[in-house]
Amino acid sequence: MASITLDTQHRDQLVDITDEVARCARDHPHAGALLVASMHTTAAIIVNEGFDPDVAGDLVRALGPLADRSDYRHDEGNSDSHVKVALLGASQLVPVADGELLLGRWQRIFFCEFDGPRDGRTVTVTALAAASD
Amino acid sequence: MASITLDTQHRDQLVDITDEVARCARDHPHAGALLVASMHTTAAIIVNEGFDPDVAGDLVRALGPLADRSDYRHDEGNSDSHVKVALLGASQLVPVADGELLLGRWQRIFFCEFDGPRDGRTVTVTALAAASD
Amino acid sequence: MASITLDTQHRDQLVDITDEVARCARDHPHAGALLVASMHTTAAIIVNEGFDPDVAGDLVRALGPLADRSDYRHDEGNSDSHVKVALLGASQLVPVADGELLLGRWQRIFFCEFDGPRDGRTVTVTALAAASD
Repeated sequence: MASITLDTQHRDQLVDITDEVARCARDHPHAGALLVASMHTTAAIIVNEGFDPDVAGDLVRALGPLADRSDYRHDEGNSDSHVKVALLGASQLVPVADGELLLGRWQRIFFCEFDGPRDGRTVTVTALAAASD
Repeated sequence: MASITLDTQHRDQLVDITDEVARCARDHPHAGALLVASMHTTAAIIVNEGFDPDVAGDLVRALGPLADRSDYRHDEGNSDSHVKVALLGASQLVPVADGELLLGRWQRIFFCEFDGPRDGRTVTVTALAAASD
Repeated sequence: MASITLDTQHRDQLVDITDEVARCARDHPHAGALLVASMHTTAAIIVNEGFDPDVAGDLVRALGPLADRSDYRHDEGNSDSHVKVALLGASQLVPVADGELLLGRWQRIFFCEFDGPRDGRTVTVTALAAASD
């Protein structure tokens, strides 16, 4: 198991971590997939388009109203962050082969901060074995 | 493959199943991840905050209006339940090492009932091998 | 790693690919799960009810307003497609045992097109090893 540590600068922010995950893939030539998991309840992982940075901003804008409520009871002021993580997912499993990520042409892996800015956010990367048969 | 069986008491209800999944992890010291999968189309699995029970209630309240429509055609009255499962996911993959769940400090695993109350809801837990290289 | 190629006929369309995935499962009697991954940033994979085709239509209708905004900046006119994929997920991991999919009675696997019609959409299916202990 490897881990990626990163700092965020905004409350809502997508950080492209594809290159860091790809480095983990190279260490595991016999793996069939890498599990990329956020260790936080207010930060998600997604696979989505990374070529045009406007897509990340559009996603942040679209998620806002989906989680915007006035009747939350959790008193830390970040219930919307927890809702966004539930919707997007705490982890993604990325197929790999021969130590390379099997992503589509426009796919990138993003850490999605929803309660930043924060220092020392942690993502674990676990290599899973391909079935041999 | 192990399974967890549980009953629910409300239409929408989050049940913390982390302890049951952790017991499965102990049986698989060489696993790299556990696949926790709902066998139902109206119940999801998520990883989210479990320290403050208000977060679960906030999540249920936030999801309601996202799936509330008057023009559903499926005549069982639970189209909103299917939509919630699509949004949250039918399963979660949780990293493990040395027979222990690799969760963040506040992360817990929840079975999310969206068409209860029901008896005999089933969650399968499948241990996947870590890559040896 | 196997792959499934398919064409879509509508902008938003769910295609049941369970039978194709089940054929992949038969080739891997020792696998513990199959990773079913979309190679596209405007197409998702879900596990949901497949018995009544109205559920798929209801899901498409419910997702529309969740991603309908007038202030998107990505200029390809498919920001809503990217948002839907973020919400549903680019892949699903399906438990298998003895070469058979471990799905619940009503569960089916769907390729979810959100920017069609398109020819040659690709889904990869990667078999992951069950933990032996």
